[in-house]
Order: sequence, then structure tokens, then C-alpha cells
Amino acid sequence: MTRLDLTLSAVLELLGEGKLIGDPEFVCRSLAMLEKAGPEELSFVRDRRHLASAQGSHAGALLVFEALDGVAGHQIVVERPELAFARLLGVVARRQREQPPGIHPTAVVHGDAELGADVRIGPGAVVRSGARIGDRSVLYANVYVGERCRLGADCVLYPNVVLMEDVEAGDRVVVQPGAVIGCEGYGYIQQGARQHKVPQIGRIVLGDDVEIGALATIDRAMIDRTEIGRGTKVGDLVHVAHNCRIGEDVLLLPTVAVSGSVTIGDRAVLAGRAGTAGHLTVGEDAVLAGTAVAFKDVPPGAQMWGNPAKEKGLEMRIQALLRRLPELFREVRELRAKLDD
Amino acid sequence: MTRLDLTLSAVLELLGEGKLIGDPEFVCRSLAMLEKAGPEELSFVRDRRHLASAQGSHAGALLVFEALDGVAGHQIVVERPELAFARLLGVVARRQREQPPGIHPTAVVHGDAELGADVRIGPGAVVRSGARIGDRSVLYANVYVGERCRLGADCVLYPNVVLMEDVEAGDRVVVQPGAVIGCEGYGYIQQGARQHKVPQIGRIVLGDDVEIGALATIDRAMIDRTEIGRGTKVGDLVHVAHNCRIGEDVLLLPTVAVSGSVTIGDRAVLAGRAGTAGHLTVGEDAVLAGTAVAFKDVPPGAQMWGNPAKEKGLEMRIQALLRRLPELFREVRELRAKLDD
Amino acid sequence: MTRLDLTLSAVLELLGEGKLIGDPEFVCRSLAMLEKAGPEELSFVRDRRHLASAQGSHAGALLVFEALDGVAGHQIVVERPELAFARLLGVVARRQREQPPGIHPTAVVHGDAELGADVRIGPGAVVRSGARIGDRSVLYANVYVGERCRLGADCVLYPNVVLMEDVEAGDRVVVQPGAVIGCEGYGYIQQGARQHKVPQIGRIVLGDDVEIGALATIDRAMIDRTEIGRGTKVGDLVHVAHNCRIGEDVLLLPTVAVSGSVTIGDRAVLAGRAGTAGHLTVGEDAVLAGTAVAFKDVPPGAQMWGNPAKEKGLEMRIQALLRRLPELFREVRELRAKLDD
Repeated sequence: MTRLDLTLSAVLELLGEGKLIGDPEFVCRSLAMLEKAGPEELSFVRDRRHLASAQGSHAGALLVFEALDGVAGHQIVVERPELAFARLLGVVARRQREQPPGIHPTAVVHGDAELGADVRIGPGAVVRSGARIGDRSVLYANVYVGERCRLGADCVLYPNVVLMEDVEAGDRVVVQPGAVIGCEGYGYIQQGARQHKVPQIGRIVLGDDVEIGALATIDRAMIDRTEIGRGTKVGDLVHVAHNCRIGEDVLLLPTVAVSGSVTIGDRAVLAGRAGTAGHLTVGEDAVLAGTAVAFKDVPPGAQMWGNPAKEKGLEMRIQALLRRLPELFREVRELRAKLDD
Repeated sequence: MTRLDLTLSAVLELLGEGKLIGDPEFVCRSLAMLEKAGPEELSFVRDRRHLASAQGSHAGALLVFEALDGVAGHQIVVERPELAFARLLGVVARRQREQPPGIHPTAVVHGDAELGADVRIGPGAVVRSGARIGDRSVLYANVYVGERCRLGADCVLYPNVVLMEDVEAGDRVVVQPGAVIGCEGYGYIQQGARQHKVPQIGRIVLGDDVEIGALATIDRAMIDRTEIGRGTKVGDLVHVAHNCRIGEDVLLLPTVAVSGSVTIGDRAVLAGRAGTAGHLTVGEDAVLAGTAVAFKDVPPGAQMWGNPAKEKGLEMRIQALLRRLPELFREVRELRAKLDD
Repeated sequence: MTRLDLTLSAVLELLGEGKLIGDPEFVCRSLAMLEKAGPEELSFVRDRRHLASAQGSHAGALLVFEALDGVAGHQIVVERPELAFARLLGVVARRQREQPPGIHPTAVVHGDAELGADVRIGPGAVVRSGARIGDRSVLYANVYVGERCRLGADCVLYPNVVLMEDVEAGDRVVVQPGAVIGCEGYGYIQQGARQHKVPQIGRIVLGDDVEIGALATIDRAMIDRTEIGRGTKVGDLVHVAHNCRIGEDVLLLPTVAVSGSVTIGDRAVLAGRAGTAGHLTVGEDAVLAGTAVAFKDVPPGAQMWGNPAKEKGLEMRIQALLRRLPELFREVRELRAKLDD
């Protein structure tokens, strides 16, 4: 694993917060989980529940939620250790997959594309006419950025990502490898037995801090836009159909499928392989549990389980009773026998 | 959005049908939905149900199913306005993602590959030995066309599409970005605890007017062929396993999965995330509703819901009764109490 | 289809086993299934159940499990004809998609990457700094191999495969087109309404003889490793989340999804579209049937059906009884009426 190699004082400076208990010159070689961390490694203690692990840990240094007794390593007290740790993970992540500066000679960037400062473009990447890429954004190898796409600053498009034309992305948007954004939605008109294609020419709009998982597909609408709001996180192999409006800070976990013209409210969560039928609304803060599928509107804040999705309590009762279904049939048979007696 | 910029007389000529009520020199700047269309835009009125919207619309021009009263804009009367509109969408679509003519210097086309007239090949695309590409077909950037593939005329392979060797496609076949056609089917033979790979060397045959969605996978069979019939439309992230025979004008919506050696009849519809077990037949005109999964043959024309798939009426009754299962258990408890009394 | 063109004596030599009954100079032009094989083709007879087909076959030669009477063609008696046939399929497969030797001039291989003997690298492929590729491994067009990846000997990465940094693969690992290995797992920390990304910097380890299907995603863990054991076969469009430990000789069929931090024991089978919630264990030799989803640990050897997954017998009874649910409700209504009478 790529090393961290930072002194505790450098860590403090990078975090911009924290109180050091220990030696500022101590060098953290790398990052590790509490149970496995060695004397040259930095780990973190999320909260009181991990106190025993912390006291048993061999970590050289710890990000802690408060000054801890009985802990061997140096300590940095921070507001939320797991967030501070995530920032250090980011330092290592950038380093371990850092792309060389500049534009690789095998990249094909159209003459009228506009590139911001310190944009990095890998081998074989293609940027088409009229595209604009913001400062410090990174396009890995074999990425395709279509005509008139607009990416903000500090975006990362991992290898083989495809942005078809007219995709607009805010700042700090991250797209994992192979995701396809702006392919055509599934639109056909039947005439007799035959299906006629309805070309899809709408736009895609991704807000700031959106992340799209590997091999996800976000479809272009016929004419309107498909929209994914600020801060929303889309997992691997997720499908968002044409004409959807996904709110802000929404979580679409891996393998979720959202059908066409669906609106999802802010902060809603669709857990793994959850899904929806088309033309419905999932309210703000609603949760669809893993593999739950909504065929009707989901009210704000609702917790839905099952397929078709039902209110969590009801679905749990049904599932519990299903296991007793054989018993119920037997009981009814007995009642009948007794009654006929 | 890319503009249309056509006069109504040019629109008429392009459609090859229609009766104009209004000014042939009126210029339609772009296409829009009825509710949002402005005075320079062209929209459409599908049928009588949209009459009120049409009369309230600010659209400069409308494709209409019959001459309409009380409508502000110019009108073109056509047989099916939504089909005519789709054709105009196609004009814009081609323009907004048009590929430059010729073969990009970074494409790698084998010396013995045969290219038809006006074939366009984007940067980094690879065409292997013995491949044949029909007239006017377009390969976007980083497409891979394997050995001896044969594509008809007017095909479009969007960026990063992979056709492994011996894939045969008819005319007007469209493959959305990143789809993989001709990867090896999931074939292994167990020997002791170990699994031995069965290499898959069959062919893939796609009929005319087939469309394959983004990041779909169509697997190669061991020795026979996997076949997708004329006019069939396959959605994003669909999986078609080895040795399947998919009929004509079939709709496989996004995230559908069809297991190995399945036959699907003409005009069948598998809605979102529907699926089948292997070695079965789905009859002509049958419908599997969203998330329905067939574990047995589906008769022609059947409407199946649920997992395992059941006849629609039965599944609907079961789902309705499931919500009353707590009540049923209570009722049986009461009956028992009364009887034991 | 690509031809075999081997004499029976060459076939014998290649298999390293078998007893020939017939002419060693007979040339097998190609491979075929029993029912369709012609007089110049080689097929196989798996066991006694296919005897009638064998006797009716026009195959020029047959791999057989024992010397057969009443069969027209030449015979080679081998231990397991289907395994011998699979080896011959491999000969054809290698030939029909063979990559030219050497490194294509448009590939971008970092100066400090280490390539073994006879490594083949296709157009547009990228090998980053510190990567090591074992002898005879083949990278097809537009493959991406990240920093410090280590591939063993005889690996095949089909077109557009992405290995992000620090992926370690054993010998004979095969990755079908477009699969993404080492993308970041779905890790976020909530702070207020917002989600903060947790960068994922762990490693991926794939054992010998692992095969990964087309467009599958194998996610990198935050800090630990995601591991797929020797001989495990992963299907198309499968998702393996961060921090999973998948055992040896496991079968994950196409479209399976394994959530984060799951452990799967050796020889377990997850059939098509089966899945698991996170942080659980599927025991050795356990089976999750097609579309079954485990929300709790699955004991070793268990056969689980349904969603949520239940012991097979229970789920079968429940499904059978569900079809009789309307009848049960009617019966209870009648009992009530009789009792109230």
C-alpha cells in the first residue's frame, strides 16, 4: 500500500484542526485499522465503543474523539476521527493513483475544447468539440468526453468513463471506471408489431460533489434533462433511466435501478438492488431497503421493505407470518375437521 | 441543446408526409415538449387527450393528428405525430453527436478489414482482421471490433463498445456505449472441487434494427449461436446469457437478465429487472412484468407477475391477501378460541 | 467458426490421454454438438444417456467415455469426454481471437513496468508505473493496468478491462471485456445532511485460475483487501463490494451482487441474481438459488431459496401455499360463517 509518510505536525496542518498529545515529529508511515495497526502506523478511534480496541492497539498514533487513557500511541484529538481519517485516506489515494501532469500525446483533444489550469488527460482519452474541463480535473486513460460537455473543477473521470454529448457536471464530481453518462434512454414507439426508436437528445446535469460508481448508466432523456443533485452518491452498476430527477445527498447503493421519469427527494436512500417503477416519486428522507421495489409513490420519510415495497412494519410482520403459513393451513384444516365433526 | 433550424417546408420534405396549415417559410429553431415549447419551437400533439395542452401551448409549430382549432402555432397534420417527431429528434441527434468523416489516424484498422462507403471510425478504435463494416456505419472512439465481425450498413457503435470475434450484425444496429457483445458465456465443468473452464467459441447474430443498451452483455455460446432477432431492443445493463434465441421485436428493458439457452418468442416484453431461469421458453407476445422472474415456460400471450412469476391475476390476489395476512392469523386464533370454548 | 484442423493422432497428443479406435490420420475440421456434427467434425458423448444420439450422429469422430457399438465415426475413449472436448474448444478459442505477438506501438507501457516473456499488449492498452505482467499474459486493446498491479503468467485481460492500482492476480486469471477491478467501494460518512467520501485505498487479490465476467465490478476496500480465492468464477455484471473475502472454487453466476464485508466459503454457489446483505457469512458449499437474497448468515452446505432467503424446503412449501392463499381466506370465511351460525 502507498505510504503516508507524514509527521504528526504535518497531519495536524493538513487537517486544520486537532490537539496533539505526543511528539509532533513522530512520522506516520501509513494508515491502518485499529486492530492491525503497527507502531509506525496511524489509526483512529471513532467513539467510546472502540475504547477497548484502542487500549489494545499497537498503533503508533491515533486520531481520537477525546484524550484517551491507557493508550500507547501518540494522540490527536479531533471532532470526528473517522472524518479526519478519511481526509488522510484521500492524501494516500491521490498519491497512489496520481496521473502525470499535462495531456498525454496519445490523447485526442479537439482544438476548440477549453481546458482549465492543470488539467490532466491520460493516454487515449478523447475530448470532443466544444467541451470545457475545469481546473485541476483529471481524465484517466481512454475516457470519452462528448461534444459540449462541461465539467467543473477538481473532477475525476477514471479510465474508460464515457460522457456522451451535453453532459454538465459541477465541481468535484467523481466518476468511477467504465460508467456511461448520457447514453440514450430506452424510448420506442410501437407501430404495428414493430418498435421505432425515439432518439433521445436531452441533457444530463450532475451537481457538485456527485459521485457515480463503476459501470453505472445514467440515461439521456428524449428532450428534457436527467438530473442528479449535489452530493448524491451513485453506486456501481446502478441504472438511472431517462428523465429522472434525483435530489441532493441521495444515496443510490450499488445495483439500484431507477426507472424513467422518477423523482427522488433529497436525502432518500435506495439500498442495494432496490428499485422503482417509472413515473413515481420517492419522498425526501425516504428509505427503500435492500432489494425493495417501489411500484407506487413513497411518502417522505417512509421506510419501505419488500417487493412490492410496503411499510417496513407491515412487511416484517408478513415475512414473519409467511414462515408460519404451513402451520396456519394445518390449523385451518383442524378447525374444519373439528367443526364438521 | 442542438438546434433543428428547419423551415416547415423542409420539415415536410424530410417527413415525406403531412399537410401544412401555416407558413412554409416559418423556421423551427428547436424541438420541445408541448408544455414548454416557445414561439420558435416545434412540438407535437399525440391525440385528442392533449388538446387542452395544445391550445395552451406557445409552440410556434405543431405536428398534429388532425387540424386543430384554437391553436396558436402553425400546424402540420400527420398520421402519427409522435413518430414524425421522433424522426425530427433523429435529425438533431445525428447532428449533436456527429462524428467526423473518415478514419481517425489513431484508430487501428487491420489491413484486410473491409470498410464500406463513408464508414467513420473514431480515435483509438480497433478493427481486427477479417472484419467487414457496412456503408455509413460509425464506430466511435475506443470501440473494439473483433476478428471476422460483420456489420451491416448504417450501424452505430458508441464509445467503448466491444464486439469480440465472429459477431454478425444486420443493418441499422445501434450499440450504446460500453456494451459487450460476444464475451464468453458462463460455462464450467466440475471435476472434484475444481471448476474447469469450457471455452465458448460460438457466434453472435444480431438482426436488422436491433439496439443494445449501454453496458449490456450478450454472451457467446459454447458452439452454437446466441441470436437476437430483427427489431429487438435491449436495455442498459441487460444480460443475455449464452445460447439464447431472442425473437423479433422483443423488448428487454434495462437490467433484465436472461439465463442460458432460453428462447424468447417474437414481441415478448420483459420489463425492468425481469428475468428467467435457464433452458426455458417465453412464448410470443408474453409479458413479464417488472422484477418478475420466470422459473418455468411462459405460454404465448401470458401476463406474468412476481417472483416466481405467476399469472397476473393470481399474483395480484396473492399480493392483496398478503397485506391481510396478519388479520387472517388473528381471525384463525379467534375461531380456535371460540371453538375450544 | 474457426477450424480445428487436427488429425486424431494430433488430438490424442494434445489431450495426453485416450485410446483411439479408428484412423489416426483422420482430420477433424471443426468441433460440433452431437446432433449437428457432420462427417468432418469431432463431437463428444458425455455418458450412457447420450448413446442413442451418438448412434444417430453423423460425426466423423467422437470423444467417448467408453468404446461404443453402432457408432459410425472414429472414437477416442477418454476419462471425461466433456473435459477433453473443452480442451479442444480452448485450442480453437485461442486461435480465433489470437493477439499478435509483441506490444502494439499505440500501447502506453510505463518504462519501469516489468513484462514477462511473450507478453502481448494490444492497441491503446495502458500499463502504469510499477506494474508487473507475467509470462505469456495477453492484454487486449484499451486495457488499463494501474500502478503496481501484479499479474501472474498466462493471464488474459480482454478489451477495455480496467485494473486500478495495486491489483494482484495469480496465474491464468481471465477477465472478460469491460470488467472493472479495484474501483473504489461505496464508502461515505454522513455529517449533517451531507455525505463525505471515504477514499478507498485497499488492495485486491485474485487467486490463480480466477475468472471475472464481462462488466463485473470488484471494489477496493478502505484499507484492507478484497479477495477472490483460487478457481472462483465470477459472472457478467456481478458486483463484489469492498472488503469481501470470497473463497476458492466459488461460483458467482451472472448479475449476482455481494454486499460489503461479506465472507463466502469455498465452493459456495450463488446462482443468477442471488445476493447478500453486508457483513455476513455464506458457509462453505452453501447454495443460494437464483434471485435468493441472504440477509443473515448462511450455514455451510445450506440450500437457500427466496428473498429473504429461507431453507429450500420451507420456501418451496410457502410458495406452494401462497397459490392456495385465496382458497384459505375463503375457507376461513366459511368457518366463521358456520361458527357464527
